[in-house]
Amino acid sequence: MSKQYKITSWLLPALAAAAVFFLPTTQAMAQQSPPTGMPNLLAEVSPEMFTTNNLWVLLAGCLVFLMHLGFATLESGLTRSKNTVNILFKNTMIICIGLLMYALIGFNMMYPGEWLVNGWLGWGWGITRSGEDFLTSKYNEGYTWYTDFFFQAMFAATAATIVSGAVAERIKLFPFLIFTVLFVGISYNVTGSWKWGGGWLDELGFYDFAGSTIVHSVGGWGALIGAMLLGPRIGKYAADGTTQPIRGHSLPLATIGVLLLWFGWFGFNGGSVLSADPGAISLVLVTTSIAASAGGVTAALTSRYVSNKPDLSMVLNGILAGLVAITAGADQMAIWEAFVIGAFAGVIVVFSVLFFDKIRIDDPVGAISVHLVCGIWGTLAVGIFGDKGLYRGGDVAGSQLWWQIVGIVAIGVFTVILALIIFGVLKAMNKLRVNAEEEYDGLDLSEHDMASYPDFQQTWIKSYDTGEL
Amino acid sequence: MSKQYKITSWLLPALAAAAVFFLPTTQAMAQQSPPTGMPNLLAEVSPEMFTTNNLWVLLAGCLVFLMHLGFATLESGLTRSKNTVNILFKNTMIICIGLLMYALIGFNMMYPGEWLVNGWLGWGWGITRSGEDFLTSKYNEGYTWYTDFFFQAMFAATAATIVSGAVAERIKLFPFLIFTVLFVGISYNVTGSWKWGGGWLDELGFYDFAGSTIVHSVGGWGALIGAMLLGPRIGKYAADGTTQPIRGHSLPLATIGVLLLWFGWFGFNGGSVLSADPGAISLVLVTTSIAASAGGVTAALTSRYVSNKPDLSMVLNGILAGLVAITAGADQMAIWEAFVIGAFAGVIVVFSVLFFDKIRIDDPVGAISVHLVCGIWGTLAVGIFGDKGLYRGGDVAGSQLWWQIVGIVAIGVFTVILALIIFGVLKAMNKLRVNAEEEYDGLDLSEHDMASYPDFQQTWIKSYDTGEL
Amino acid sequence: MSKQYKITSWLLPALAAAAVFFLPTTQAMAQQSPPTGMPNLLAEVSPEMFTTNNLWVLLAGCLVFLMHLGFATLESGLTRSKNTVNILFKNTMIICIGLLMYALIGFNMMYPGEWLVNGWLGWGWGITRSGEDFLTSKYNEGYTWYTDFFFQAMFAATAATIVSGAVAERIKLFPFLIFTVLFVGISYNVTGSWKWGGGWLDELGFYDFAGSTIVHSVGGWGALIGAMLLGPRIGKYAADGTTQPIRGHSLPLATIGVLLLWFGWFGFNGGSVLSADPGAISLVLVTTSIAASAGGVTAALTSRYVSNKPDLSMVLNGILAGLVAITAGADQMAIWEAFVIGAFAGVIVVFSVLFFDKIRIDDPVGAISVHLVCGIWGTLAVGIFGDKGLYRGGDVAGSQLWWQIVGIVAIGVFTVILALIIFGVLKAMNKLRVNAEEEYDGLDLSEHDMASYPDFQQTWIKSYDTGEL
Repeated sequence: MSKQYKITSWLLPALAAAAVFFLPTTQAMAQQSPPTGMPNLLAEVSPEMFTTNNLWVLLAGCLVFLMHLGFATLESGLTRSKNTVNILFKNTMIICIGLLMYALIGFNMMYPGEWLVNGWLGWGWGITRSGEDFLTSKYNEGYTWYTDFFFQAMFAATAATIVSGAVAERIKLFPFLIFTVLFVGISYNVTGSWKWGGGWLDELGFYDFAGSTIVHSVGGWGALIGAMLLGPRIGKYAADGTTQPIRGHSLPLATIGVLLLWFGWFGFNGGSVLSADPGAISLVLVTTSIAASAGGVTAALTSRYVSNKPDLSMVLNGILAGLVAITAGADQMAIWEAFVIGAFAGVIVVFSVLFFDKIRIDDPVGAISVHLVCGIWGTLAVGIFGDKGLYRGGDVAGSQLWWQIVGIVAIGVFTVILALIIFGVLKAMNKLRVNAEEEYDGLDLSEHDMASYPDFQQTWIKSYDTGEL
Repeated sequence: MSKQYKITSWLLPALAAAAVFFLPTTQAMAQQSPPTGMPNLLAEVSPEMFTTNNLWVLLAGCLVFLMHLGFATLESGLTRSKNTVNILFKNTMIICIGLLMYALIGFNMMYPGEWLVNGWLGWGWGITRSGEDFLTSKYNEGYTWYTDFFFQAMFAATAATIVSGAVAERIKLFPFLIFTVLFVGISYNVTGSWKWGGGWLDELGFYDFAGSTIVHSVGGWGALIGAMLLGPRIGKYAADGTTQPIRGHSLPLATIGVLLLWFGWFGFNGGSVLSADPGAISLVLVTTSIAASAGGVTAALTSRYVSNKPDLSMVLNGILAGLVAITAGADQMAIWEAFVIGAFAGVIVVFSVLFFDKIRIDDPVGAISVHLVCGIWGTLAVGIFGDKGLYRGGDVAGSQLWWQIVGIVAIGVFTVILALIIFGVLKAMNKLRVNAEEEYDGLDLSEHDMASYPDFQQTWIKSYDTGEL
Repeated sequence: MSKQYKITSWLLPALAAAAVFFLPTTQAMAQQSPPTGMPNLLAEVSPEMFTTNNLWVLLAGCLVFLMHLGFATLESGLTRSKNTVNILFKNTMIICIGLLMYALIGFNMMYPGEWLVNGWLGWGWGITRSGEDFLTSKYNEGYTWYTDFFFQAMFAATAATIVSGAVAERIKLFPFLIFTVLFVGISYNVTGSWKWGGGWLDELGFYDFAGSTIVHSVGGWGALIGAMLLGPRIGKYAADGTTQPIRGHSLPLATIGVLLLWFGWFGFNGGSVLSADPGAISLVLVTTSIAASAGGVTAALTSRYVSNKPDLSMVLNGILAGLVAITAGADQMAIWEAFVIGAFAGVIVVFSVLFFDKIRIDDPVGAISVHLVCGIWGTLAVGIFGDKGLYRGGDVAGSQLWWQIVGIVAIGVFTVILALIIFGVLKAMNKLRVNAEEEYDGLDLSEHDMASYPDFQQTWIKSYDTGEL
């Protein structure tokens, strides 16, 4: 009761504050005609080309949006049905909170018009623009300001979604939403600004095309810290040292999730070209597909060697591993390089899952192995394969691998510290994890008093029949 | 038996008639080369811009098509598994019947080349065009005639789908399909022509960008009348005045539905720009997303206050409420206005659901609250926020709110009367509602003799094992 | 054990070989700047038009990718839950293997730069291109080489997916994957090259716009041979001559599948225009939708006559039947012709399903009726309706129906022979079908030792609780 009361006592004022902050800078707009028209102020690109570029980046943003449905179905499919409502609730709220926080402060922190600390920390409120300003994005003349926001906002929320899977089945709802607000609202944007906002890592020569590090390993570090501080689910690791598998309740849901994520990744990577440049986007979609396919095949083979059976959940994770790994360099890999990067990701994801089980870090969906481990691998791969800095006129070639490592470590250290602070404070307040009885009953009952499949969960009938709306 | 016989005795002749009507006007085409090529007859827009505009409106139509999958999964997820086949059957047939009826007469009624009653009632058969005619749509030179039809046809079927949810779990199949034919074939198009067809409401200054009233409240009125005439499901309202919740059988299905609807709404609102104008479509996609997010968050908070728990089904309805509400003015709201419109919709949808339960109108999926109540709210909001008529050169500014009310009332009155006639006649013939035994067994058994999940519905095994193909 | 060991002993060397073959021809690329930029070498089309054409064909490829999710959900929905993991595993691996095989040899066999046997058999390794070569596709100057590959690769894998449904619930996993490698890697490409690669059928005047024959009947022939050689599932046909229906375990999954397939078909047919030509793509999307709708309605009516109830699974198959049938001529049919073609497909699919049950060929999902029978119907329809060869300057008009028959027979004979060889050899080695006990337990247990819905399959709990990762 008291826990839930706080959801409203904290969030409502925050939202009211949000409304206030949106307000002031938008007054100008309400008195103007709706912002339409061509960017005739841009001499470099024809109105037709601007329109097509803008359309593709918007569509790519729509595809990235669909990845949230992919995550929701994947994560609920790979966990037990007694926690399904909770997972769906979290994943749905992450999109809503993520988009609002990114509009409120995230976009301006990540792509700073002005830096508070030059190259390290940006700041700004709201996203409203009007008139001709509206037709210019921050970093590209190929699409509008709102297209820029739309595409980047859809990206932002994915970082928190990655964490969601690793902490599933035992984290309290409200603290997780607090974490989401801070992680999407602050942490993701600070580290993102270092590269994509033109900050210090960008200056050095670190390269991360669509976010193997900036999105996926950031989410993966959050997942690792969350899973460590929470501890494993009850029953996962027996006293005798053996691991008990806790099967996900619906492999159709999980498969829907992975194929939707692959589909959405065409927007994630393809849209990161930031234009509809035919050469670049067609190469990116092909390298993305080849890496995903290779990851799926090698994960199938590896899991067959390791566990003596063709494991569907490993194939699914192998596909995601290939996708995460190619993301850092999807725009500059040859076909064989995409194949090797994806194939290797499909192998290491299997051993990584085994490793984290061995050291007893319980990650219900394998998010740490997929997003952190393969995100690091993909980022390193940009220093091993591809152009290795040649795209920058050759001035950082040779040292590309070094700058990749610097980027991985810098972003990792910052993210780990922030996640440690957020999760640590919540844990110190004893608000991080549900108690054993709630965990046994399932979070759907304890946190929501709703059943995910009431017709098929007979033991629940009493509970939901007596509930009120 | 006799009921089902009539499906074929009525529909087959109707379809044969349809084929006849398609035929005559299409003879010209078959003797011509397939209609391709550029609209070089259009001087105002370059072939490149025409191609991009046309592509976006077609893609938007594809996204709206996907909303039908969203409705199908949402409605089946929020109802019991004993009625799932019936709901899927209805939702699948609605698309098929809707597209055919819209091709046969709907398109010409809604966008009349010729009016039967000027500004009030259009008429015409078929959609076939050939040669250069083919390259010109009715109201826009930015896409082809068939693109115009495709996008609008996908819209049309949504109105009947909205009704489907509210009357679920107790309406007979065949009468509902009759309703669909008349509602999509006639009612929707008459009221739609008043505004989007350039009729009398358009003359007056009524504004409804993408259909908060023209699509959603029209569906909502149909839902209200249907739910009222049918009466509540058995067991929903106890004699002692309390309400018994009847839980939907699969919250994963419902969540898939809402996120697919959100995804499809990018086409619903974005395509309503009727071009790929970068400024307009990027603004529309951002206002749409902000309103949906705000609705989700405020519905979560409100449901927490009201029912003491974070309610997933309310979050889902809150997102839809925000989407419905922003639809009337998505092209002219500032960011903060989109936030306020969506946030308020997320609050009122919760109280509306409670209200309709209090007055004992049983709406299994909350369609009336989402589409009617929030559709009205969104249409009114165009008179409160945004440009308030300034887009028309200012000549209706100040009175915009008044014309919004006129439009809501006029369209509501017509739709209510038509729905009362259709549902009323069916009820008078005692053909509207299944009997109590059929309702208890579930419509899957009584109407289809099929189980939705035969492996998990043990008591059904006898039934389906003895069935014939 | 030994069976599974061979997965790795065969596939791993094959993949290693694949990596080797990708390698040599790609060296040039790694030393170059990433391939971006406009095709200024193409004088016929402006950079803007090239960009839009390229974007549409890529997007269409993404939509076709999503059809694989459609097939995965449709096939698992229409079969029993004890075989669901197996079906999802197969469908996921088909995409991965299909894309890799098509990159390795398929693309060069189907669109041969050089023929081994002129007009009959092409050959070539890998897909890597760089520099200006990269900006030219094989058959169209409207998109890049990699776009060409991407779109065609997504097509290729569908042929094997069609087979997957018909052989479900009894075929061994590894032999099916062997079949997939050979079918997608060789068979599909040889017959495809005869028409789409500019081979002998193309010379003769055979027409198949988007693959009623080249994709769907090819998959259908494979399905027929597979189902025949495997024999029916245990319990399907009783000794007394009656047919026992074996119900699919989840009609929501099946419905999701069909609506996703319809959505994906907008890319399948629309992308086959091979440009964003407004006239052509808008006509194609409308004819596609009209035929699907007509097929759904007539299948509902026909199933009602035949089996006395409105059968959801027949409506779903009717929609697919309409889609398959319109595919051969979607670009040249008038609206009424699309209606007739789809409506007739919806009728024959029902009788075809009954027919194959009568002759005791067990096809769990109706793939033979949908893809083979309606694929043939759609290909013949091009000789009956539409332009009948007029698009070729009239020189084959009048004989169009004859060339359609030649194409259907030639491609059918080749595919049947190849499928007979592959499945025949596997059957002779006694490796085609699982044994009766495995079939009774379900392939999820025997082939994967995983449950698809462990929370709801109580009898399985022992099995999966004692499993290892």
